[in-house]
This record gives sequence, C-alpha cells and structure tokens, in this order.
Amino acid sequence: MSVFTPVSTEELSAWLGRYAVGRLVELQGISAGVQNSNFFVTTTLGRYVLTLFEAIPRAELPFYLHLMAHLARHGLPVPAPIANRDNEYLGTLSGRPAALVRRLSGHSEMTPGTAHCACVGAMLAGLHLAGLSYGRRQDNPRGAAWRDAAAARVRPFLPADEQALLDIELAFQTGVAYDRLPRGVIHADLFRDNVLWDDDRIGGVIDFYFAGHDALLFDVAVTVNDWCTTPRGELDPSRAEALLAAYHAERPFEAAERDAWPAMLRGAALRFWLSRAEDFHLPKAGEMVLVKPPAEYRDILRRHIAAPHSLPV
Amino acid sequence: MSVFTPVSTEELSAWLGRYAVGRLVELQGISAGVQNSNFFVTTTLGRYVLTLFEAIPRAELPFYLHLMAHLARHGLPVPAPIANRDNEYLGTLSGRPAALVRRLSGHSEMTPGTAHCACVGAMLAGLHLAGLSYGRRQDNPRGAAWRDAAAARVRPFLPADEQALLDIELAFQTGVAYDRLPRGVIHADLFRDNVLWDDDRIGGVIDFYFAGHDALLFDVAVTVNDWCTTPRGELDPSRAEALLAAYHAERPFEAAERDAWPAMLRGAALRFWLSRAEDFHLPKAGEMVLVKPPAEYRDILRRHIAAPHSLPV
Repeated sequence: MSVFTPVSTEELSAWLGRYAVGRLVELQGISAGVQNSNFFVTTTLGRYVLTLFEAIPRAELPFYLHLMAHLARHGLPVPAPIANRDNEYLGTLSGRPAALVRRLSGHSEMTPGTAHCACVGAMLAGLHLAGLSYGRRQDNPRGAAWRDAAAARVRPFLPADEQALLDIELAFQTGVAYDRLPRGVIHADLFRDNVLWDDDRIGGVIDFYFAGHDALLFDVAVTVNDWCTTPRGELDPSRAEALLAAYHAERPFEAAERDAWPAMLRGAALRFWLSRAEDFHLPKAGEMVLVKPPAEYRDILRRHIAAPHSLPV
Repeated sequence: MSVFTPVSTEELSAWLGRYAVGRLVELQGISAGVQNSNFFVTTTLGRYVLTLFEAIPRAELPFYLHLMAHLARHGLPVPAPIANRDNEYLGTLSGRPAALVRRLSGHSEMTPGTAHCACVGAMLAGLHLAGLSYGRRQDNPRGAAWRDAAAARVRPFLPADEQALLDIELAFQTGVAYDRLPRGVIHADLFRDNVLWDDDRIGGVIDFYFAGHDALLFDVAVTVNDWCTTPRGELDPSRAEALLAAYHAERPFEAAERDAWPAMLRGAALRFWLSRAEDFHLPKAGEMVLVKPPAEYRDILRRHIAAPHSLPV
C-alpha cells in the first residue's frame, strides 16, 4: 500500500506533545506495508515510525504492541513501541488507532546467501525463546480455521487442476498430527522484506501484525519457504541447511518436529498460496495493495509434494 | 578504571543461556567508566554491554535499571537493560551483581559546538519529561547531605584560600531557597563523555549510575558547566544560550528556576570540585580510577561567583 490516511504536520506536532520524544522536525509517508499507514517521523530527539492501523481491530492491537515491547526488552532488534507520557503505547490520530515505534536501521536483502540464512535462523529461534515468557495470548490469525475458510472462498475462482491440488492438500493437512509440536508466539511472516540488515548483522525484524500463538515449526517453515527458495521455486539445500542448523543451535528441534517437517513446509506454502489467491481474486475495495502472484506459492507447494524435504540437522 | 573483575568466556557463555540473545561470539573489556566493570559482548543475535557492579549496593540497582528501561520505553536513546528469560534485569556473574544492556552506537564529542549543545539541551529536557512518569524514587546520591559530608572530609587537605572559598560557598548554598524548584529524576552526570554521537544526532546517553531525585535545574547546571565552558574555565555564552534555549523549547523554565540559576551554577560546580578533591586527596584503595584534577571545578566555581550568569531565555 501507500499511505491510506493522511496526517498533517500540525496534527502530528500537537499529538507528539503527549510524548517525551521532542518536537517534530520531519514527517514522511512510507510507501510499503500491506495493512497500515506508516510514516517516518524525525523529532529533535530521535527517529521513529508512526503507524496508523487501518484494518486490525483496536482491541487486538495491545497484543502486538506489548509483544514488540517484550521482545525488545529481551534484547532483540524489533521496533519497540514508544510509551507516551501517560505510559500508554496506543493512541488515536486522524481518527485511527496509532502508535509510535523506534525506527530501526538497515535495508532488506532480497538475494540472501547462506550467511544471511544462518543469521535469520538464529534470530527466529531467539524470537521463539524470548516469546516463551510473553504473557498475552492471541491465536495465529492465519491458522487452521482461517485456512479452511479462505480455501472455501477462493476455490470457486481456481481452475480445475488447482481445485484438485487444494482439495488434496486440505485433506492431507487435516490429517497431520500437529498437536504435539512445541507452541509459542510466532512472527508468522518473516519474509525477506521484514528483515533489515545493517552490514552483515540483523538490525531489525519488523511487521509483527500477523503474529500469534501456534506451532513454532510453522514459523520455521514460512521462513524457509521465503529465504531458501530459488527463483525457479526449488528449495536451495545449502541455504535451508544454514538456516535450520543455526536455528537448531539456539533451540534444538524435537523429534515430533523432525517428523512433521515435510508436512509443515507444505502447510506453510498453502497458507501463502491461499492468502495471495484471495488478494488476487477477491481484492478489498480501496486498498492499494501490491498483489503478489499466487502462482509462486502454488508452485512451492507442488514441489514440496513432489520432493519432500527432511530436516538436515 | 579498567575492568576490575575478570569474566571468562566459559562463564559468560553459560550465563547467556539464561537470556534469549543468542550465543557468545566475542567478549571484550572496556577501559572506561569509574565504578563498574564493563565489557562489550557480541552474540549471534546482537551487540550488548555487560556491566558488573563493583560499588553500588545491590538493593539500589533496580532503581537505575528500571529507570533506563523506562526512559528507553519513552523513546530516548539510553542503554535499555535486557531481561533474561525469567524477565529479570539483574543477575549475578563472577560473584557480582550483573546486567546486560543494549549497546548504543556513536562516539563522544569533546569539543562541542553550539549545534551539539542545542541537541544536548533538548535531550536533557526529554529525559526530564520522560522521568516525570517514573514510579521508583531514590534521592540524588550527590545531593546536599553528601555535599556537606564530603566538604567536611576534604576540608583538612585544602590550602587556606580554598578552605575560605569552600566555607563561603557552603554558607551561600545553604541559604538559597531551592525548595520551590520543580523536581524529578535527574541524570546528574551528563558530561561530554556520557553522550554518544551518531553523526550529528545523539545515539546514546549513558552512565545513569549517579541518577536520582532532585531539582531538575541542578541537572541543567551540571550539563552547562561541562558542555559550555572554555578550556580557560569561562562560560561560553553562545554555547550556553544554545543549550538553554533548546531545553526551554521542550520544557519552559519557571520563574523560580530563573531566580535560582546563578546560584545553581555555583552549586553544580561545588559538587564536582568536592568529588574530585575527595578522589584526589582520599583515593579508595584498589581503584584504578583516572583522577580528574579538582582545580578545574574550583576555578569554574570562582568564575561563577565573580561573573554570575543569567538565564538567556
């Protein structure tokens, strides 16, 4: 998207008076993100990102904001929300729920190598470990219930061969025993554009607005599908091994996770095939979303079915 | 000081297992600071500073650690303490109270210009405003009670003219009505070496271990005495005006602060003259402290007496 809701410098200057971050120097819209309006905000005391929430219900926002605060408190490079002088993270600006977060440095790396993948695997494990002591709970908003509902919505728009693939995969996923996997808070969207690199170090992990409680292994599979897939849609074994070995070094995989891994890679591919198909066939009015092609994740799913991957660690 | 208490990589690796910051990559002692042992710690997930507390009683440490957490939560660039997986900031390592904090980027600027002083003034006001909602309370450990006790300890070591100066200044300070000044949490040691610059921006304000509750104006005077004094010990009016105007823009001075300003500059100079005289004449055994010359602050005090400065804003 681009910015949906405009904010004037006058409004923002007045609103910042509730904070201890100094006075407004510069306001700049950010043309990225898919469900919020984001702005870079520079003040006399620092650099921040302002988010106006366009879609997430206000009652669900404290889960995300306190999660980011919790992870930052545990030393991880996530956008810590800024408390105002009443000690609140969530405010209202231009009629929208609004929050100020710390601006992190770095840029995305869209053609990662094995060293990048190792850093990402270690970071994902760190997020999972730090999340274990997080007290609030919200289910993964893109979990099994959403999957089944989304599949019913998009199925009528699919050609016959894709309908068959979808039916087979839904039946398969329903039969997998995921209930014995270790669970916790997952990022659920740790794609390459949500990691900021500061030289060879991860300077930021952003966009926690799909986070929720689910199997930790689902998060690993989402991450591997994005970071370790070649442009032809095949899993790159060396990048996958680097990511998984680094994760394993921080949080060792359990036997149940080893068993579930090939199915989980398919489940994670299915989740993004479905959401992209829905964005493509059933776009929401007024959203200037950059629609990503659903075919990419359909093909990743097909390859995982044809060539199951085993945990290399 | 340099590092007082050694830490082995084996000990630290085991200790870091209580955190979610990844595994140890590098440990490096820091040869700066005056009352703690400090180390740079690099892990697979980030860069941190480890502090072992050598002098501050353990019971007083939560005040400082939660203060840094509070200020960081309010968006200010201070070394946020890292919580371990039990959600605690304070641990024990090598038999000492120990804490891990976020490592901030930047370097000290020892010859600041007016632009630096304006940034520092704004930042100090931001610290004061954010501190107003901090719930814990501890008195300034270098307040009036300490001043009178320290004066009694060092007086016998001073030459006659300095004893006379001390007696005059103590009598003067005792007579000033500071009790109507706005109070709050003050840094109390915002010298040039405690501010890290990241280009022209303040990337870090460090060393909160003299912080406490006192008149906010005392903090302003401490800061002006360090940042706005020429090598000859005279106040540089342009730097002082830049610092004070920037502070005033964030937190306007009150009439009582205007009245107290010339006396407060003297009181802040006296505080550092006394602590340096004590470090010089009564050094503590075993501390490898770089003793700073007491004469510098004796002379700043003399000049404030000879040429009282008025608030230029």
